[in-house]
Amino acid sequence: MKLLRLGEPGRERPVLLAPDGRHLDLAGVAGDLDRAFWLDGGPDRVRAAAASGALPELPPEQVAGLRVGAAVARPGKVVCIGLNYRDHAEETGAPIPPRPVVFMKDPYTVVGPNDDILIPRGSVKTDWEVELAVVVGARARYLESDAEALAAIGGFAVSNDVSEREFQLERSAQWDLGKSCETFNPLGPWLVTPDEVADCQRLGLRLSVNGVQRQNGSTANMIFGVAEILRYLSQHMVLEPGDVVNTGTPAGVALGIEGNPYLRAGDEVELAIDGLGSQRSKLVPA
Amino acid sequence: MKLLRLGEPGRERPVLLAPDGRHLDLAGVAGDLDRAFWLDGGPDRVRAAAASGALPELPPEQVAGLRVGAAVARPGKVVCIGLNYRDHAEETGAPIPPRPVVFMKDPYTVVGPNDDILIPRGSVKTDWEVELAVVVGARARYLESDAEALAAIGGFAVSNDVSEREFQLERSAQWDLGKSCETFNPLGPWLVTPDEVADCQRLGLRLSVNGVQRQNGSTANMIFGVAEILRYLSQHMVLEPGDVVNTGTPAGVALGIEGNPYLRAGDEVELAIDGLGSQRSKLVPA
Repeated sequence: MKLLRLGEPGRERPVLLAPDGRHLDLAGVAGDLDRAFWLDGGPDRVRAAAASGALPELPPEQVAGLRVGAAVARPGKVVCIGLNYRDHAEETGAPIPPRPVVFMKDPYTVVGPNDDILIPRGSVKTDWEVELAVVVGARARYLESDAEALAAIGGFAVSNDVSEREFQLERSAQWDLGKSCETFNPLGPWLVTPDEVADCQRLGLRLSVNGVQRQNGSTANMIFGVAEILRYLSQHMVLEPGDVVNTGTPAGVALGIEGNPYLRAGDEVELAIDGLGSQRSKLVPA
Repeated sequence: MKLLRLGEPGRERPVLLAPDGRHLDLAGVAGDLDRAFWLDGGPDRVRAAAASGALPELPPEQVAGLRVGAAVARPGKVVCIGLNYRDHAEETGAPIPPRPVVFMKDPYTVVGPNDDILIPRGSVKTDWEVELAVVVGARARYLESDAEALAAIGGFAVSNDVSEREFQLERSAQWDLGKSCETFNPLGPWLVTPDEVADCQRLGLRLSVNGVQRQNGSTANMIFGVAEILRYLSQHMVLEPGDVVNTGTPAGVALGIEGNPYLRAGDEVELAIDGLGSQRSKLVPA
């Protein structure tokens, strides 16, 4: 299934994008795509309602006028894995990490896939990172196997782990400060359930700025795969339904490119992952 | 005012601790001590209801049987300031930071002040940190002055920034992993509103383990004071009502003490801050 959230910030309603392209209203079947959705068996309810043919269609002209919200409601936490692609670790001059590098973003940074990205005041090093986001679908602590880890996945989405490199790397050795600026995590357009993703370790991910392709990688090149990341995290923290895990970015960020072409107001950034849809955001001053 | 939350996890109800020691039920006045409480003028409603004498008293025998929950409902984020007391920076061998060191905890780590603290599986370096927690009471971005920063405070509470030092310091250079284990942020017992705290930079904070005093500091010795912390954070992220900021710990953590007496199952840790009440937690295996 492809699920999405349509409407103004804070008032999004959940919608099912049917295989035939129709948008089906999930009001009455799901309150929102949040922790309660998974705790209360939301995916099964949506599947049953879709199969019954009872879901009302949203007229295309109405859908066209609606903002696409983040693929999930504000998460309980956003966990990120750093330096998780060999080529990206190399471009930043960092050694290949022996264990996942774990840090966090402010969950309030999660915004819609086409919302404006704000360049923080005083920032001259705002950077992009296309990433596969894993949305947790079941409470997970001390996962024992890859199978258990994969069973805890609620879905996948396109994520932009926007980063301010001066805040992240120069103001202290802890990265969260440069990862948590307002609007720094466009997420979506869709939450794609695992049954639609044949192999999450064979997805191409691409990012371009003003039409120039900057990132073009594959999740096949992750140092730590999705199952291993979830298992590792669950030895150290409890993953809750609705949490988001950004699994790292391939090479091609401004920090690693000749001339460091950081984002400027007016720039447009486009992201896509195979089967998960695409984002398009404009950069504007905060 | 002293506000608290009484009841089982996830079903706490807000209560006002009156100056005469009575516990007054806030059902009908406030849903919970969360983001909506501050956005909807909760503190003023509570003040007005208390002044009117209309709040029903909870019988002491009922209060005695109730668990004390965290001083706020699950925060949108928990931000922490590291190495913010000179003596603590020195005991850990770190240089005095030129700017606040900012990292994050999983918001799900927030538990009641007397709840058990779980020692993660495989952990041999679980450590304590008594801290002054600031709870944000108003949305804050790009704060321009100390006065603006202080006006954004919703209250203060005792916080234990429990830390697993191997996870934090040895498994990668990013600290969040060792700060985000299950139950790692006992918070409370009370949320004390700013009008009851004459000077938040003159509060004594103490922590003992099994009756042996380990930490005995004063917020007067912070490197970056509360107002400066909030101002600095707000240049990099948006602070939202209900967010928690742990402002750092004074010297005396196990990491810095001769022999590194890390916490073991069965240990009891007690924390207190002048005017903000006390905590008492038992350590148990996860």
